[in-house]
Amino acid sequence: MKTIGFIGTGVMGTGIINNLLKANYPINIYTRTKSKAEPLLSKGANWFDSPKSVTESSDIIMSMVGFPKDVEDIYFSNSGIFAGATSDKILVDMTTSTPTLAKKIGEFAEKNNIKAIDAPVSGGDLGAKNGTLTIMVGGDEEAYGELLPIFEVIGGTFNYFGSYGAGQNAKMANQIMIAGTMTGMTELLVYAKAANLDLNKIVDTVKGGSAANWSLSNYAPRVLKDDFTPGFFAKHFLKDLRIALDEAAKMNIDLPATKVATQLYETLVDEKNLGDDGTQALIKLWWN
Amino acid sequence: MKTIGFIGTGVMGTGIINNLLKANYPINIYTRTKSKAEPLLSKGANWFDSPKSVTESSDIIMSMVGFPKDVEDIYFSNSGIFAGATSDKILVDMTTSTPTLAKKIGEFAEKNNIKAIDAPVSGGDLGAKNGTLTIMVGGDEEAYGELLPIFEVIGGTFNYFGSYGAGQNAKMANQIMIAGTMTGMTELLVYAKAANLDLNKIVDTVKGGSAANWSLSNYAPRVLKDDFTPGFFAKHFLKDLRIALDEAAKMNIDLPATKVATQLYETLVDEKNLGDDGTQALIKLWWN
Repeated sequence: MKTIGFIGTGVMGTGIINNLLKANYPINIYTRTKSKAEPLLSKGANWFDSPKSVTESSDIIMSMVGFPKDVEDIYFSNSGIFAGATSDKILVDMTTSTPTLAKKIGEFAEKNNIKAIDAPVSGGDLGAKNGTLTIMVGGDEEAYGELLPIFEVIGGTFNYFGSYGAGQNAKMANQIMIAGTMTGMTELLVYAKAANLDLNKIVDTVKGGSAANWSLSNYAPRVLKDDFTPGFFAKHFLKDLRIALDEAAKMNIDLPATKVATQLYETLVDEKNLGDDGTQALIKLWWN
Repeated sequence: MKTIGFIGTGVMGTGIINNLLKANYPINIYTRTKSKAEPLLSKGANWFDSPKSVTESSDIIMSMVGFPKDVEDIYFSNSGIFAGATSDKILVDMTTSTPTLAKKIGEFAEKNNIKAIDAPVSGGDLGAKNGTLTIMVGGDEEAYGELLPIFEVIGGTFNYFGSYGAGQNAKMANQIMIAGTMTGMTELLVYAKAANLDLNKIVDTVKGGSAANWSLSNYAPRVLKDDFTPGFFAKHFLKDLRIALDEAAKMNIDLPATKVATQLYETLVDEKNLGDDGTQALIKLWWN
């Protein structure tokens, strides 16, 4: 059985690693704050003190960290993945990061005869925990084939979209869609409250028709219970939207609705300092 | 059995009337262009040559026309509903119109001891045909109770939201949500195409996760087949969004995402003259 290295043991990483441990994969881990890895170490994962040493001891090296700069760091620093990678390794970055960085990693890997893919996911903490993530893959197609048994363990849906960065682009398309459902849901609630409608009744009514969507069914009820705990951090969603707009600008396309959503989340995260709330906290720009 | 008068025999009205005829209600109809009513007349509906005469001969007078000015006309003109209405009638406007006009109609009716409700619907032509419409009701609550047997015939979900105009406000909340799903779906496709992703694959992938929504599942496949026939006319959606923004302005709330959606549909309808296309034609602002 292949040995899997995993870098980053946040909520998502932990969910994924737990499923891999249950499927009896030997797991090597590194994360910035060792204490966060303790629950996994007690279940049999092995600790290593750098991405480099994890890489040296593993066949497949997966990563799920916060921001593109973290990805850049774990791949290219002196104690990073590439410092330990040899041509028998497969590198899998699952962080939602920039298509540009995914291409840089992929091309650097290819030059050194290493297989690499970008494989960001959607489905949140529950998807990670339940092994039902949607995985969007770009990069080395042969590696994608070799990884299928692992994706079966951690994912529900997975698709190969093309060369390096295509997985990241697919994830960006996903986030652009969510920008629409989140702003729509939020403005629906703002309007309905101002018009003195029964908010639970309006959510129940609207979610059953042609306005139906996942955000409305799952996040509106949380908003109405004043529950702003993160299913997905507002700061991470803002990061994703900024990447989407950067890439759109490079491709010379204008996305005005995504732009407005980004401005709203910028206000929420940068001005109101609510980046550690869940994305449903967008309503706080209207309701105090 | 109550006799139902129906004013307006477009796609929606025709679907509703067919279901009422099947349930053996006597039906009196008027519509601006008589030829459009022929299929219903041949099934047993009775023709009258004005809203006034329909009203005089019916117990319950329902209407489903195009724009608020049409509603104003069929209610308040010399040959209109109020010219024929007496205190034993129930008036039901199902047009998506302004909450302000719904209040005006309701208050005028109340002064004359006539029961009136606003009852806009969602669910489109298929919902009308299949008797599964979502009906959002405001106005006289006693009348709502008396109409339940009829709503059972034509609707799947119906809810009472409050006094005159509350049904229209609920519908506006619904349209604000759809503004988000339609702009999100459109910009998703714009981005994905620019990034050279397989568009069918990306729609299939995204619609299964936390970005899932009705517009993506139902309209994106039509866009990808170049099918812009209206499930819902772009010109009518623009009308709805303008009403929503007008009402929002009166309530002193700002809805930036809905505003951008409205501007995009304005460009589509007013500049590109594509108001008779379906709402999914928004993509034509990017793809030529």
